[in-house]
Amino acid sequence: MKTDIEIAQEATLKPIAHIAQSLNLTTDDWEPYGHTKAKLSDKLLTKYENKPDGKVILVTAISPTPAGEGKSTVTVGLGQALNKIGKKAIIALREPSLGPVMGIKGGAAGGGYSQVLPMEEINLHFTGDLHAITSANNVLAAMIDNHIHQGNKLQIDPRRIEFKRVMDVNDRALREIVVGLGGPLKGIPRQDGFNITVASEIMAILCLANDLEDLKKRISNIVIGYTYNEEPVYVRDLEVEGALTLLLKDAIKPNLVQTIENTPAIIHGGPFANIAHGCNSIIATKTAAKLGDYVVTEAGFGADLGAEKFLDIKTRAGDFEPDAVVIVATIRALKMNGGISKEQLTEENIDALKAGMENLQKHVETIQHFGLPFVVAINKFPTDTKNEVEYLKAWCDENNYQVALTDVWAKGGEGGVELAEKIVQTIDTSEKNFKHVYELEDSLETKIEKIVHNVYGGKGVEFSTQAKKQLEFYKQQGWDQLPVCMAKTQYSLSDNPTLLGRPRDFTITIREFRPSIGAGFIVALTGDIMTMPGLPKKPAALNMDVTDDGKIVGLF
Amino acid sequence: MKTDIEIAQEATLKPIAHIAQSLNLTTDDWEPYGHTKAKLSDKLLTKYENKPDGKVILVTAISPTPAGEGKSTVTVGLGQALNKIGKKAIIALREPSLGPVMGIKGGAAGGGYSQVLPMEEINLHFTGDLHAITSANNVLAAMIDNHIHQGNKLQIDPRRIEFKRVMDVNDRALREIVVGLGGPLKGIPRQDGFNITVASEIMAILCLANDLEDLKKRISNIVIGYTYNEEPVYVRDLEVEGALTLLLKDAIKPNLVQTIENTPAIIHGGPFANIAHGCNSIIATKTAAKLGDYVVTEAGFGADLGAEKFLDIKTRAGDFEPDAVVIVATIRALKMNGGISKEQLTEENIDALKAGMENLQKHVETIQHFGLPFVVAINKFPTDTKNEVEYLKAWCDENNYQVALTDVWAKGGEGGVELAEKIVQTIDTSEKNFKHVYELEDSLETKIEKIVHNVYGGKGVEFSTQAKKQLEFYKQQGWDQLPVCMAKTQYSLSDNPTLLGRPRDFTITIREFRPSIGAGFIVALTGDIMTMPGLPKKPAALNMDVTDDGKIVGLF
Repeated sequence: MKTDIEIAQEATLKPIAHIAQSLNLTTDDWEPYGHTKAKLSDKLLTKYENKPDGKVILVTAISPTPAGEGKSTVTVGLGQALNKIGKKAIIALREPSLGPVMGIKGGAAGGGYSQVLPMEEINLHFTGDLHAITSANNVLAAMIDNHIHQGNKLQIDPRRIEFKRVMDVNDRALREIVVGLGGPLKGIPRQDGFNITVASEIMAILCLANDLEDLKKRISNIVIGYTYNEEPVYVRDLEVEGALTLLLKDAIKPNLVQTIENTPAIIHGGPFANIAHGCNSIIATKTAAKLGDYVVTEAGFGADLGAEKFLDIKTRAGDFEPDAVVIVATIRALKMNGGISKEQLTEENIDALKAGMENLQKHVETIQHFGLPFVVAINKFPTDTKNEVEYLKAWCDENNYQVALTDVWAKGGEGGVELAEKIVQTIDTSEKNFKHVYELEDSLETKIEKIVHNVYGGKGVEFSTQAKKQLEFYKQQGWDQLPVCMAKTQYSLSDNPTLLGRPRDFTITIREFRPSIGAGFIVALTGDIMTMPGLPKKPAALNMDVTDDGKIVGLF
Repeated sequence: MKTDIEIAQEATLKPIAHIAQSLNLTTDDWEPYGHTKAKLSDKLLTKYENKPDGKVILVTAISPTPAGEGKSTVTVGLGQALNKIGKKAIIALREPSLGPVMGIKGGAAGGGYSQVLPMEEINLHFTGDLHAITSANNVLAAMIDNHIHQGNKLQIDPRRIEFKRVMDVNDRALREIVVGLGGPLKGIPRQDGFNITVASEIMAILCLANDLEDLKKRISNIVIGYTYNEEPVYVRDLEVEGALTLLLKDAIKPNLVQTIENTPAIIHGGPFANIAHGCNSIIATKTAAKLGDYVVTEAGFGADLGAEKFLDIKTRAGDFEPDAVVIVATIRALKMNGGISKEQLTEENIDALKAGMENLQKHVETIQHFGLPFVVAINKFPTDTKNEVEYLKAWCDENNYQVALTDVWAKGGEGGVELAEKIVQTIDTSEKNFKHVYELEDSLETKIEKIVHNVYGGKGVEFSTQAKKQLEFYKQQGWDQLPVCMAKTQYSLSDNPTLLGRPRDFTITIREFRPSIGAGFIVALTGDIMTMPGLPKKPAALNMDVTDDGKIVGLF
C-alpha cells in the first residue's frame, strides 16, 4: 500500500493562480507563496460583505481512540465529493503543529486520496503562521521579564506571571524550568515553563479575531499576570500590542491551497482542542463561506471537545451558525469504545461494536441538543466486515439517523458521494434550531454544569479549593460573563481517560481556571492536561529525510 | 527629515517577477513569496557552473561606535551606484534578526535612499529562514533531552551538553536556566540556556554550506556534547540530520528582493559577527556572482571581525576570493575613536579626527595584509564640516589610499557614483595577492597568534587553564586543523571594549573554546561575549504599530 507522501508526490497540482481564479479572486485578493500556496487578503470579508454566505458543514467525531477515526480525511473527502456532485465547495482546516509532526503523527493533512497539498509544506513551515505566533508570544514574554528587570514600574509580581513562552516543538524538558539565573545581568529568577505554540492564547486570539483591529484589541486584553496587589496586568499596560499585532499582520491572512483533486482548501490557525478551542480561524471559515456555496470545516477531537467549543465559542465570536454536522465514526474505533484492545480489532466482533455504539449515541444526542441536523459518516477501513457494516447501518436506520458509508482514503471524492448527497439533502430538508448549550449570562459554574450534563452526560461538577477562589475573583473582575473553554482529555466523555464508551453518573473535577481574557474565554482545567507534549521513544523525525535533489521521504 | 520607513513606503517597487526577468531567470529558477519577495533555486550554481563569476566587492568598516558608520547603507548605495554607471551589480546582504529589530535597532535593511525593500518584511519574518533555523535547532535540542529521558542509549552526560536551544528574541532571562524540573514526566533536570538564533551553529552551517548535501553533512557533524566517558556525541549518532535538513530545505534557498532604486538584492543568512562569522550565505554570494558582473557584499562589524572571518572562513568554505574591499568610515565615528563622547560630535574637532585616524589606518593595514585592493568610503553625515572632510581626504591622499565621499543615505545611487567609479577602476588596475592570515595546518594557538598580531595589532595571546585543556583535547580529536572563529567585542581591536582607536601592546585572553565542528570552525571566546542579548529600558517594539488598514509605523 502506498504511503500518504507517495500518493501526494504522484498528484498533479494546479498552479495556485488557477485555484484563485476558479474562486473569482483578483490579483489584489491574494499573494503567492511559492507556486502552490497563497495567502488570501484579510479584507475579503469586507469586500464580499453583501454577498450571501455559503452553507457551513461542521465535521466532528466520536471519542477518538488510537485506532483513528480519520476525521480530517473525511473532511477533505467530503469537500471533494461535493464538487464531484456539482456543488461549489471549499474546505477549511487547521494548520498542523510541527511538534506532533516530528513526534508521533508525522503529518496532519488528511490521508490517501483525500489530502490537502502540498502536504510536505503544510506539515512543515507552511506560510510561517505558527512561527509568527511563536515570535509574537516570545517577544511579549521577553518584554515582561525585561519590564521587571528594568525597574518594574507596573509592580508585576514575578511569582504571579501566567504568560508563558512557547515553542512549536514537543519538548517535555521545558515543562517546568527556572529562568533568570546567573546574577544581575541575567534577569530575575523565577519558576516558569514553556507551552507548545498551538496551546498559546495568541493562537486562540488569531483564530477568534474577526479582523486586524479585533486582533489588536484582543491582544491588548491578554492578562499576563498580577501585581503584588493581585491586580491583573494586561498587555495594554505594557504598551506592546502594536508590535505584537505587527508581528501577526501576515499570519492573520488565511492560506489557500488545494486538495489532491484540486478542490480549494483554506488552512488557517490551529489551536489544540484539549487545552484550547480546537478550530481553524473565524476569518478562514467566514472567507470560505463567501467564496463557496458549501464550506466543510473540522473541529478537533470528539463532539464533546472541538464541536462544543466550535458551537459555544467560535460561533459566538464570529457571529455565525453552522448548517449541518457530520459525525465521523469507524467500526474499529467503535469496537475499541466497546471495550476491546487494539490488537483484537482485525477480527469481527459484533458484540464489541454493539457496546461501542453508546459512544456514537451520546455524540448524536449532543448535536441534537445544539439543534443541528446531522449525518453519521462511517469511514471505511479494510478490516471492516460486511456484518459489522450492516449492523451499524441498521442501527442508524432504526434510530432514524442519516448514515453514509465513506471510502475517501482509497477513492477520494468518489468515495464520499453518498455522504455529500445526504448532507446536501439534510441541509435542504431539515429544520435547524441552533442554540448554545449555555447563555453568556450564566455564571461560570452554571456554564460548566450545563456542559457536563448536556455534552458529557455526567451528573455533576466539583470545584477544587483553588478553583472556587478563582471563581470569586473572576466575578469581581467581570470575567464570569465569558464563555468557558473546557480543557479535558479527548479519550473519554469524562475527565478520566480510561472510561471509554458512554460513562454515566460521573463527576467532573475542575482543578484550576486560567483566564484567556484576550481570546475571550475562561479555560477550565480538568485532570492533568499537558500544555507541552513530549516526544515518544522513537520520534517520527528519525524516519524523515530529504535527498540531495530535494525529494522528501518519511513524512508519513 | 523623513524616517527610513516613510521613505520606504513612498518607493515604487517593481514586481519581483520583473527583477527576476532582469536577471534572465526562468520560472523554474525562482518562486514568489508575495509580490515583492522571491526564493531563488538552490540549484542555480549548478545550472551556471560554467559561467564566469562576477567580481566580488567586500564592504567592511572601521571599529563601530554608537555614532554608526552606515555600512549596510553604503553597501546598498554602492550597488545602486554601480548600476547607475552602467554595470550589472547585485547586492548580497545578511537577514536581520528580530531580536535587535525589536530591541535597539528597529530595522536593519540599509537606510534613507539606500534601502532594500520591502523593509517591513525583511525586518520582520521575511521568508521564514530564521524561523526554520530556530525550529531545526530546537527539534534537535528536544531530541537530545528526549534521548536521555528515554534511556540514554548513547550515554550522553547531561552535565556536558553543549548544544543550546535558541530563540530569535532578545531575552536575557533565558541566558541561564534550569530545565527538566518537576519529576519523572518532565525530563532530566540540568543547567541550560538559550542563545539568540543568529548565534546558533545551524545558522553558521546554513551560511557556509555549498548545497543541500553539504548542509546535511555539516549538520551530521555537529557535536552536541559529550558522553560520560568524555567522547564527543555527534548529530549523526542521534540520526536526526535527515529531519533537520528537511526543516531547512527552503531556508537554504537565497532570497531575492530589490533596493529602493530596483537594484536586485539577495538577502540570505545572518550569523552574528561577534560570536559567529558574520557573513551572508556562500550560496547567496556565489549565486549573485553568477547573476551579476559585480557583487557588493558586507561582513559584520569592523574589519577585525566580519572581514577577517569572511576572508579566513567563508572564502575557504566556498572556495572563492573577493576582488576588492571597501572600508567604510564616518567622520563622527572616527572622532569617537579619537576619544570624544557622543554628545560632542556635532562640533568640528580636527584633533579628535586626527587621533581617530589610527583606527582607520589599522583596518587598512589589515586589508593590505590580506593582499586585497581597497577604497576608503567616507559616509557623509549632515554634521560633517568642510574642514573635517578635507582633512580626511588629504590624509588618504598622503597615504596614497583611494578615497571617495559617499552620500548614499540622502541621494541613493547618485551619492555613490564616485565610490563606484573608484572601486571599478581599482579592480581593473590593482594587483591582487590574496592570502589568508593563517594556514589550516597551523595549530589553533598559531592561528590565533597570527590573527592577534596581523589583524588586531596586539602583542600576544594568553590561554586560560580551561582553554589550554581544550586545546589538548581538540588536537586529539583532529579538530585543530579547522579555522578559528574569534568571538570578540566589536568596539575595540582588543578584547577590552573601552580601548578605542588603535590600542597597542595588548594581550588577548582566550577564556574558552567552543567546537563548531558542523559549521567547520572552532570558536575562541575572549572576554564576556553574550550569545543572548537583552532588551533595553525602552525597547524599539514600544514604538511599533500597525493600523487597522495595515499601515506600519515605528519600524525605524
